[in-house]
This record gives sequence, C-alpha cells and structure tokens, in this order.
Amino acid sequence: MAPDGAGAPPHLMVEMARAGLVIPTGEPGLVGRGAALQAVVDGIVLLARRHGADDAAEPMQFPPAIPRRSLERSGYLRSFPHLAGTVHCFCGDERAHRGLLRCLDAGEDWTDGQEASGSAMTPASCYPVYPAMAARGALPAGGQVVSIRSYCFRHEPSDEPTRLQWFELFEHVKLGSPDQVVAFRTAWLARGTAMADELGLPHAVEVANDPFFGRAGTLMSDAQRQQELKFELVVPVNTPGPPTACMSFNYHLDHFGETWDLHQASGAVAHTACVGFGLDRLAFALLRNHGMDPTRWPAGVRAALSLA
Amino acid sequence: MAPDGAGAPPHLMVEMARAGLVIPTGEPGLVGRGAALQAVVDGIVLLARRHGADDAAEPMQFPPAIPRRSLERSGYLRSFPHLAGTVHCFCGDERAHRGLLRCLDAGEDWTDGQEASGSAMTPASCYPVYPAMAARGALPAGGQVVSIRSYCFRHEPSDEPTRLQWFELFEHVKLGSPDQVVAFRTAWLARGTAMADELGLPHAVEVANDPFFGRAGTLMSDAQRQQELKFELVVPVNTPGPPTACMSFNYHLDHFGETWDLHQASGAVAHTACVGFGLDRLAFALLRNHGMDPTRWPAGVRAALSLA
Repeated sequence: MAPDGAGAPPHLMVEMARAGLVIPTGEPGLVGRGAALQAVVDGIVLLARRHGADDAAEPMQFPPAIPRRSLERSGYLRSFPHLAGTVHCFCGDERAHRGLLRCLDAGEDWTDGQEASGSAMTPASCYPVYPAMAARGALPAGGQVVSIRSYCFRHEPSDEPTRLQWFELFEHVKLGSPDQVVAFRTAWLARGTAMADELGLPHAVEVANDPFFGRAGTLMSDAQRQQELKFELVVPVNTPGPPTACMSFNYHLDHFGETWDLHQASGAVAHTACVGFGLDRLAFALLRNHGMDPTRWPAGVRAALSLA
Repeated sequence: MAPDGAGAPPHLMVEMARAGLVIPTGEPGLVGRGAALQAVVDGIVLLARRHGADDAAEPMQFPPAIPRRSLERSGYLRSFPHLAGTVHCFCGDERAHRGLLRCLDAGEDWTDGQEASGSAMTPASCYPVYPAMAARGALPAGGQVVSIRSYCFRHEPSDEPTRLQWFELFEHVKLGSPDQVVAFRTAWLARGTAMADELGLPHAVEVANDPFFGRAGTLMSDAQRQQELKFELVVPVNTPGPPTACMSFNYHLDHFGETWDLHQASGAVAHTACVGFGLDRLAFALLRNHGMDPTRWPAGVRAALSLA
C-alpha cells in the first residue's frame, strides 16, 4: 500500500471540497472554508475555552505576522528555516515597475526585485505573546496565561489535508516558574484528552518532536523526546496512514524566557509552556470520524461544539 | 501646523497602547489587540451583518493569503505594486543554511536566499471570492452575495494608526448584473450611513479613488472619480488631519468578471461591487470619538456593538 500522501489520492480533501466544506484555491495547502466548516472551527475554540476556563487567560489577538526582527531573534531560523515565511515587497520606481510588468506579461519570474519587508509570517500563534509579555516587566507571582488564535504559515506545500501551509491555531500559553508551567501542561494533557472524548474522537497521547531542520536537527529531536518536552494528541485523519497530531502540549524550558528577557516575579528567568489546538486538523478529524455532514453528527458532539 | 503623520506624534496610537487596547510589536503598522478592542471589532462585524441581513450572504472564510498566481492574474501588480506582499521562503540545503546563520549572526542581510513561494498576502478580503465563485460556473439569476472577513496586508509602514500594514476587513461582495450590483451598492450607502449614525460617529460620504501607483495612476484615479466608482464613508480619527475612510463602497464594473471569467446566468460577463468595513479604523474612530474606555461609551453605542 502506498504510504500516506505519496501516491495515494488526497481523498479527504476531495471529499471536503465536494461537500463545500473547504474551498480550494489552486495553491496546495491554501484553502478557504465554507460556513459549515467555519462553524465547526469556531465551536472547537469555544470548547477549548470552556475546558481552559480555570486558566483565567488574558485574550490577545494578533495579525498573522510578526516583526521580521522577532523571527530573527526567536531562534526559529536556526531550527526551522525551511518552514519560515518572510514578506517581500516592491520598492522600486516607475521604471522598475515597467520592468516588473514586462516580466509578468512575458510569463517570466518578476519576483527578483521584491525586497524583504519588516514582516514575517507567524509560525505559531504564541510567537507574538512572549515579547508582548516581556514589555510589561516581570510576571505576576502566579505566572500568567494568555489565550490567542491566529492563522499561521509553514512552507510545506502539499495536497495532504493535514499539511496545510496556512492553518489556524488556538493556544493557551503559560509563563511563570518551572513548577507553574509544568503543572499547566499536566492539567492540559488531561483536559485535552477529555475534549477529544467529548468530541467522540479516537485518540492517543504520544511523546513527540518538532520537525527540526537537517542532520543537527536529528540530535535536537532526540533530546526533545528524551526530555519529554513535547506531547501530541493524535487522531486518525488520513486513512491509510499514521494518525495526525491535532493538539500539542509543549514545555519550552527557558528558551523563550532567555530569548525575550522574560522574568518571573522572583527575578529568575521565566519558563513557558503552551497547549496548541490545530483547528483545521481537529475539524478535519471530526469530518473523517463523524462524516461530511455536521448536521448529522451525534447530538453530544454537536452540543460540545455549540452547534446544537 | 504639521501635516498629519509628518512630524506630529502619533497621539492616538500612544493613547491606545497605554490603555492596553493595542499591543505594539516594534514594527510600524503591525499591532495586536487587547480583549477590549477585540470585543469592539467583533461587535462591528455583528452590526454590519445585521444591517446586511437582507443580502442573505453566503459566508466564506479564507486565510490571509491568496495564490501568487491569483495576485498576478488579478491586475493588482499593475495598479498597486507598491502595496503588494509576496511570501518568500528558504529552499536551500544544510550548507546554505549555515550561510544564512552566518549572515544572521553577523547582523547582515540574510534574506537574499529567500525564494518566492506560491503565496501572496491578501490585499483586500474579497480577492479570494472571485475565483472561488467562478469555479462554480455561472451565477444564479439574482446574483450572489458573499460575506468575508480576513486580515489584509498593504506595505505602507507607518506609526499612523489608520495606516496599518496588517488590518482586518469585513466585506459583503455582490456578483451579478450591472443593475443588481449598483442597487446593492446604493443600498449599502444608506446602510453604512445608518450604521455610522447608530455608532454615534460624525461622518460624511465622499467620492474617492484608490491609491494607484505612479503617474499613470493619476489618470486612473481621475477616471475612477469621474465615473463615481468608489465612495468612502469618512470619520475624524486623526486630529488634526483629514478624516479617515472607514467604509468603502466600490463598483468594479466588469474588471473581476473579465479577469476571472465570471458569468451571469444570462451568459454575459458578471459585474461586481463590494462594501468594505475597515474594522481597525472603525474601532479607532469609536475610541477617538467616545473615549479610550469602551465600558463608558454611550449605552446606545454599546448596544449597537453587542457590548451591553
């Protein structure tokens, strides 16, 4: 049998497009949503907020971009250069514009003259949170939780529905002492499992690693697994194929604390953790497991998603 | 007196940041929102949906990006090359990555090796709607209205609060016959005015033009004004300074119909029009006119925004 995504037709994406749930654009991994899918996605966020009510999270909202200087400082280009996106723009005069249009009309590459702007795409919703919190000074004694939802970009063009280039991530981020952030992650491992149960999704929680670049990345992946810094809740979405990570539970140690000069109330460098909900993946998992018509999903699932 | 944005301090942005309404990121025109501002923005969308209920719009949702090929085909690069953004990515091997990191560590430009990807930033929320509708075949006899909300990008870095690089736009788009889309725009000129009244915002409706590039652009602007293709509802936001366009009412003639091969039920090329709500600008206009604390805004305004 062909491995998932390599030869096998992207059945799920075709089914979802046929049902009007997703709206293809012609660019792999860049799809729109019809109203029915959007309602499911919004319902997942409401459900996650309910399960996280005890966090008393402070909501923040950011555009899908961060300053390019933040991307540079974050360490992302060291670990995931292949996934990052930077926004480039035309800065020329009318003569340069005529050149651009000549290339465009001739079907040639016109993008050579595009220059890097001050913006980069958000790689994960939580990226703007750390510098924003650092700008406030030391954290409160109990630490702080921030909730955030935004579109993210990762450059891995594919028709595989769980490898979107543009996807939406809802996160709760905890900043505080090591004990506080570990307790937060432990609580969310239980809450995430309860959410998946409520949604009627078969699932398992696994130790995982991020997709670090290159050979040195293998060492980083191994270290991340040995220290159990990342767990994923996986659900069957592509069949055949391995299950898909739909939630992740990440302990960053003091990486973002050091990077952004984030301090606990005590003055010690802050530790951070986050729980992330892949909204598109969770919605696709629901469609795969309960069928292409959300109006016919089990009443309990619809109620959990505020659809009923 | 210094002209607006040229020498005068960006008072409103500073005031909003101090109140926690906006969250600066260090990049001009890229700001986050605190919970209070986000609630206002969401309230504006609900209000616009109520005023547009008769449109029976079909909701669509897209990421903040369109295929680069769509940008190329749309004509945007001909008229607004200076505002467009393309997403560029690292496509090299480990050796190239070492080079990238050397530049990064030396504080040198590392972006030379970034290559144009298949994605471009969405310049206005309605851009993905036209190809999506064209893919369905001819329009229904009465035409079609689509509602859409998304972040958009325009490259005009500035600390001026009404010139964000990243801003959110809610739109209703009508596709149909000339009569249908002109009637749609006429209806929205009245609805938009009623909305501004309900929000307690001083306003005027003016003939306007888009910011076409270069000297040839001046001719296009003049033609657009002569044909009254664009109206804007303007509100005082920057004081001193001219009022700011917070809503726009646009008749595209058959531009998008021709570009995307969009047809009416009769087989004739479709005409299109859209009404756009600049959500950040409207929220800033409310803050400027009613004060920095939305809990103390007039009861009628809070009710209109579903805040009460």
